[in-house]
Parts: sequence; structure tokens; C-alpha cells
Amino acid sequence: MTARLRMTVAYDGTDFSGWQGQPGKRSVQGDIEAAFRKLGAPEDIRVHGSGRTDSGVHARGQVFHVDPFRDYPARKWMESLNGVLPDDVRIMEAREVAADFHARFDAIAKEYRYFIFCGVNMPPDLRRTFLRVRSPLDIPAMHACAALLQGEHDFKGLSANRGYPERTTVRHLSTLVIEDIPEGLMVRAAANGFLYKMVRKLVGCLLYVGRGEMSLENVQDLLDHPRRTPHPPVVGAEGLYLWRVWYPGDPA
Amino acid sequence: MTARLRMTVAYDGTDFSGWQGQPGKRSVQGDIEAAFRKLGAPEDIRVHGSGRTDSGVHARGQVFHVDPFRDYPARKWMESLNGVLPDDVRIMEAREVAADFHARFDAIAKEYRYFIFCGVNMPPDLRRTFLRVRSPLDIPAMHACAALLQGEHDFKGLSANRGYPERTTVRHLSTLVIEDIPEGLMVRAAANGFLYKMVRKLVGCLLYVGRGEMSLENVQDLLDHPRRTPHPPVVGAEGLYLWRVWYPGDPA
Repeated sequence: MTARLRMTVAYDGTDFSGWQGQPGKRSVQGDIEAAFRKLGAPEDIRVHGSGRTDSGVHARGQVFHVDPFRDYPARKWMESLNGVLPDDVRIMEAREVAADFHARFDAIAKEYRYFIFCGVNMPPDLRRTFLRVRSPLDIPAMHACAALLQGEHDFKGLSANRGYPERTTVRHLSTLVIEDIPEGLMVRAAANGFLYKMVRKLVGCLLYVGRGEMSLENVQDLLDHPRRTPHPPVVGAEGLYLWRVWYPGDPA
Repeated sequence: MTARLRMTVAYDGTDFSGWQGQPGKRSVQGDIEAAFRKLGAPEDIRVHGSGRTDSGVHARGQVFHVDPFRDYPARKWMESLNGVLPDDVRIMEAREVAADFHARFDAIAKEYRYFIFCGVNMPPDLRRTFLRVRSPLDIPAMHACAALLQGEHDFKGLSANRGYPERTTVRHLSTLVIEDIPEGLMVRAAANGFLYKMVRKLVGCLLYVGRGEMSLENVQDLLDHPRRTPHPPVVGAEGLYLWRVWYPGDPA
């Protein structure tokens, strides 16, 4: 009997209240558990994600684990689930893992991507997956800001910290880069962990700097004195993707 | 009084029965005319597109002309329309043109783009705008096929010709190229005109060759003897965009 399955799932977050979601609303986790039940799983089947994603946030590479109730090969589970899942959720990969693998506790790094359309009128096919930015941006200043934020810092000032004073807010942001894409810009952020709303604050910070509303000194101040420095805004969820989650032994 | 306006419009074609559409169903042209009426236009206001697009086909650069009923600058028309249009239609550009400009009769060339995801499981955020192709493709053979089809030919065998024997089915396909994109492939096709369903047959032909179901000789035969050669399939509308329409004097 297959002990445990690790699955990678992609979703269009537009019509979900999030990975976990609010009671009575549609959640990705809830839809996946419902799909398992359609395949005969017991009522109390549970899938365990690497972490939550907010309402409207998309994923290309969210990971969850689940203990199967029937001895199917991983590939067969993937195909069967994709046959009953709604068309905005798709299992991309499935593999058997050790019985003690845990999608949340074993995750060692995550990558998010944020997509930005630069211009006044945005083509409507991008409206679910891009943030529209109308004002001109100082791209070199944004690159300098990204370089400043990269590395190990206390990111309290770049999160919507809910105040657990006993938990560290230091994270190692191994990648924060801005890339040109045909439609505008893509921000890639990878770290050993992200605080609540941290990616959307990082992007908000980059855009504030790009519009000249914050200086690099303000950003440094935000890292040094998060309590007394005004925080940048949280940008919209529609441009954000959870792109990948890494576990020990995964290829770079 | 502004004599005539030329407008460029982008739309997500998913929820439309097409540019013109069937009676009682939602059409892009109908939604734009309704938007004009919301701005006070007479009941019989008409917008004239460069041509129809089928149900589900998207646009980044469809063009239409309209005779305004009020003396607004073009930019103001664009902003006002975008304020009342549904979120799957957006006016991208507007300019004043000569009173005899005609979006359909004056068009000298069009470009379409077709987006293909290569793989078994497609990320759901691509499902409205990409065709999914599961089988492996022989890319060099597809490039050879594109090179063969490019140029001036009788494209009767690559259209869903409705049989007007008096009308020519010769077109000059100035561009047919396959480009790598992060998600898979993009086909760009530009011509001085396209026959009914011609782009979707061209892509069908490229995919048949890529899967080894058609040889380059079969393709040549299709151009030489359209009546006796089996036609390739029409691929799905969801991957197709009307990307641009050219008029005399437009930049390349």
C-alpha cells in the first residue's frame, strides 16, 4: 500500500477564496478533497498543503501530501483526480514519498512570481493574472531596491505581521529580481520562507520606489526600524503565483 | 465635428459568440454598440469591424470604425467607452481618421497568433488562451512545413471554403513562423487576407506534420490539388488571437 503521496497542483485562483478558504466558500483544498471523495475516499480525507495562498492568488507549483486509501500508482491517482477536478485546478505531478514526508514542515524554500502590465489599457485576457500599473516606472531604481532587499533581513516591515513576538521575522530572500517580459515585468522572489503578505509587500515596495514615492533610504529604514517606518502597500492578489516549493533532495 | 473614429480593441473571446455573433447571444460588436448607447448614442449606432472573429477567438488588435454622434476628442471616447464596457473588452487606442476610412475595405494585412501548450497537464490559468497538445512534436518538420506554406498560394485546401467560385482563394502569407515561448509554442501568421478558418487550418496542418500524420509532400499536394487531398483539422478557437490589422500608412 502506497504510504504517502506528494502532489504538485496548479490553479487559477480567481474563483477561490484561497487554498484553505473561508467556511461555506470555495477553496482549492476543499475541491481537491471533494475530488478524492468522488473517487471513493472516506469523508474525512485530508490533503495537507505547503502553506495557504490568499483569495485570488494562483499557483503553478503548490505542493500537498495525502495518504491514499487505495493502492494505486501515483500516476493513476493524478489521472483520476484530473478526471473529476473542476477545470481551474489541475494536478501537475504526483509521486510516492516516505510516510513521514510533510508538505508544510519539510518545505525548505518557495518561489513566487508576480506579473505586472505597464500601461493605461490592459488587454482583457491578462485581467485575471496581471496587476496593471499605469504610471511610468523608474526601472533602474527598482533593480537597486531589489538588490537591497535580497539576502537575510528582518522582514517584519514588509509583512502584515500578526504579532507573534516569539516567532522570528528574519528570512533569507535568496532571489528578488525583476525581469522584462513581453507584457511588462515579472518579479521573481525565492526565500526559505515568506511572512504573511510578504511577497505582495515586496512588490508594493518595488513599485513605490519605481514611482518615486519611496527612496532607497526609506527601504533601508524599513528593514532597520520596521516599527517606526511607514509600510508600503499590499498589491492585488491577481498578479501573484506560488510558482514552486522545494524539499530536501529536489533539483535546484 | 469628428468625422470618423478608428479604434483598436482587445477582448477575451471566451464568453462571446464572436465579433458579430448569433442573434440573442453576446457579441463583441454588440457590447461595443451597447456601450456607445450608454454614452447617449442613437439606437441605430453601428461599429464596423475589420472582419469577424469566431466564437471563442480573442483579439489584441481588432480594429473598427464608427461615426461619432458628439464632438469629443478620440482619447475621451476611449476613456468613456472603457468606463462602461464589460471587463472582457477594452479599447486600446483611438484616433480620428478621414471620413472615408473603412475598417474592413481598407485593411491591407492582418496578423494572427496561436498559442500552444505542449504537455499532458496544462496549468489552468492557460486554459482560456492556449491549445493543449499532449503528443511530442517534431519541431524541425514543423519549421519546414511553415516555410513551405509561406508565400503566395491558393489556400483553398487550408480553409473551410464555402464555395464562391468567383472569388479568389489565393493569398499572400507573408509570415508563418513558430516561436518558442516559456509555455510551449507560438505561431505567428500574417497575410494580406485570410480565408474562413484559414489560420486554424494552418495550425492544424503544422500540428499534423509535427505529429507525423502528414508529410511535407501531403502539404504540397494540399496546395496543388485542394479538391482531392484530405484537409487538416481546424484547431480549437481558444488559442487564437487576432493580433493586429494594418492600414495604408501604418508602421510595419
